Amino acid sequence: MQKAQVTLGIDIGGTNTVFGLIGEDGKQYYHNSVKTEADRDPELLFNKIYDHVNSFVENSEMDLLGIGVGAPNANYYTNKIENAVNLSWGTVNVVDILSKLFDTPAFITNDANAAALGEKQFGEAEGMEDFIEITLGTGLGSGIVVNGELVYGHDGFAGELGHIKVIENGRECGCGNRGCLETYASATGLVRTTLEFLSKFKSESELRDIPPNKLTSKKVYKYAQKGDKIAQQAFSETGRILGRALANFVAALSPEAIILYGGLANANDLIVGPVKEALEKNVMSTFKNKVDILISGLPEDKAAVMGTAGLAWHEIQKEN
Amino acid sequence: MQKAQVTLGIDIGGTNTVFGLIGEDGKQYYHNSVKTEADRDPELLFNKIYDHVNSFVENSEMDLLGIGVGAPNANYYTNKIENAVNLSWGTVNVVDILSKLFDTPAFITNDANAAALGEKQFGEAEGMEDFIEITLGTGLGSGIVVNGELVYGHDGFAGELGHIKVIENGRECGCGNRGCLETYASATGLVRTTLEFLSKFKSESELRDIPPNKLTSKKVYKYAQKGDKIAQQAFSETGRILGRALANFVAALSPEAIILYGGLANANDLIVGPVKEALEKNVMSTFKNKVDILISGLPEDKAAVMGTAGLAWHEIQKEN
Repeated sequence: MQKAQVTLGIDIGGTNTVFGLIGEDGKQYYHNSVKTEADRDPELLFNKIYDHVNSFVENSEMDLLGIGVGAPNANYYTNKIENAVNLSWGTVNVVDILSKLFDTPAFITNDANAAALGEKQFGEAEGMEDFIEITLGTGLGSGIVVNGELVYGHDGFAGELGHIKVIENGRECGCGNRGCLETYASATGLVRTTLEFLSKFKSESELRDIPPNKLTSKKVYKYAQKGDKIAQQAFSETGRILGRALANFVAALSPEAIILYGGLANANDLIVGPVKEALEKNVMSTFKNKVDILISGLPEDKAAVMGTAGLAWHEIQKEN
Repeated sequence: MQKAQVTLGIDIGGTNTVFGLIGEDGKQYYHNSVKTEADRDPELLFNKIYDHVNSFVENSEMDLLGIGVGAPNANYYTNKIENAVNLSWGTVNVVDILSKLFDTPAFITNDANAAALGEKQFGEAEGMEDFIEITLGTGLGSGIVVNGELVYGHDGFAGELGHIKVIENGRECGCGNRGCLETYASATGLVRTTLEFLSKFKSESELRDIPPNKLTSKKVYKYAQKGDKIAQQAFSETGRILGRALANFVAALSPEAIILYGGLANANDLIVGPVKEALEKNVMSTFKNKVDILISGLPEDKAAVMGTAGLAWHEIQKEN
């Protein structure tokens, strides 16, 4: 019997690290998670993962072809996680540790880039050579694919669409600048826009009963679905600012599609409609009605592992 | 004796078409130009070029390896010029005509993309895998190189940085939109900014003696050099708007350099300083002081032919 060929995807978060084994067709053979313990030696984390995965692989006689890792501040070129805010590890060469431990090639990038490669391997971007994946989480991440390859830029740090400036002297951003896209188009951006609109408009809204530090994007979503005007307008505005910003990247890169992934993308029509409308309104006529706005095809609970395993599959396919 | 290996570069303009033979090291062996006669059958133009080039190549025993063509509305994927405003040709498959006529491979793209490939083969971008070439002519053209390849996008129309929207409800643009980058950052944009500043500021300026339809970017340059405040401020503003817009593309693509080419780029410090300042002010901290702003290394009188010949060299090197 032929062994199943798989790659190992590892998504490192500040609290939990999830990992799993995925076949070339996207089939998931194994899934697990452990505490990251970001304040301890990272070798402990990787040894724990090795113990779990190795015993499974040996017992089930799988063929592990490679490892993909997604982590904050991870650099594809240097193979390192570099001073990530949520991990007190300083600079760690994760590829070096994992490829020795498992005796197989390993690759690393940030989670937004991994999401794009997962989408290309297993999701809505299958067969696409040019697309942009936007991750709408707490912040806004992006992975840009051009000519079938991820855009890492000359230093490995490309794809920071969350930190393009969209409003002059706009909202304060965690990066130190003002007016960055992610201060508007993200879960926290949506909450900030909701607060702005509660101050700007006089319409009645149950959101006025919630203290600002208890307001979440999920609550805004819930009230928007119930017909709350402020909540609905906040979604529209979020989509409008995102669509307008994306129009400029369509003119530059002419992608086949823009794919939305992550928490806010699940709001579906509340966000996709306004994104599409603002994109079409602002984009150069050459590109009108040519770019699809899609919702990610990766199942939410497996997406992080499929993205990172997708990175490994993408690299392995390049070599063959 | 070994024959010199060359490619033929052809740059088709509305009035004149220039062409020449260029070696892999950038050496120019031949240069000529003919009237485009854009209102007549394009085959006439290509036959004229063939007669000139073929007799030279035969007499000097050169080895013609390929042809690169630059033209308005030219599409790399379809091989066609498609309804270019300055050429009454409708849609023409230029690659088909030329590759049969010369019995050698031919490639086509627009002039801004060709400029980027000329820069990569023979100019300031030699050895760079990731850079952006901005052509500041009557309008603003751009060629984006990522992972060593030109970004054509999924339909061949990528690279339209001239038509990203930089000012909401801004200046009217020839493309039908408003606030496009090229309405500010180009020769005509500079003139429009000069007029705006003549209305906005009260400072004395000899530019007030020139009727608006006689005002040119060259005159603004001349007066800026003579110390005219309005002219100098117009250059600063042009650079500021360009640098601010480029900051967003640095965050997205992390290029090694941005290279300025064409008429306005010759104004050198008047434009490069403000571009650099605005870029650094607006860009995410990850990219600060990492991107070079360079002036094109292609000699102005040969640049169009070096760009198009560079396209052919780039394609030939890919195949080998």
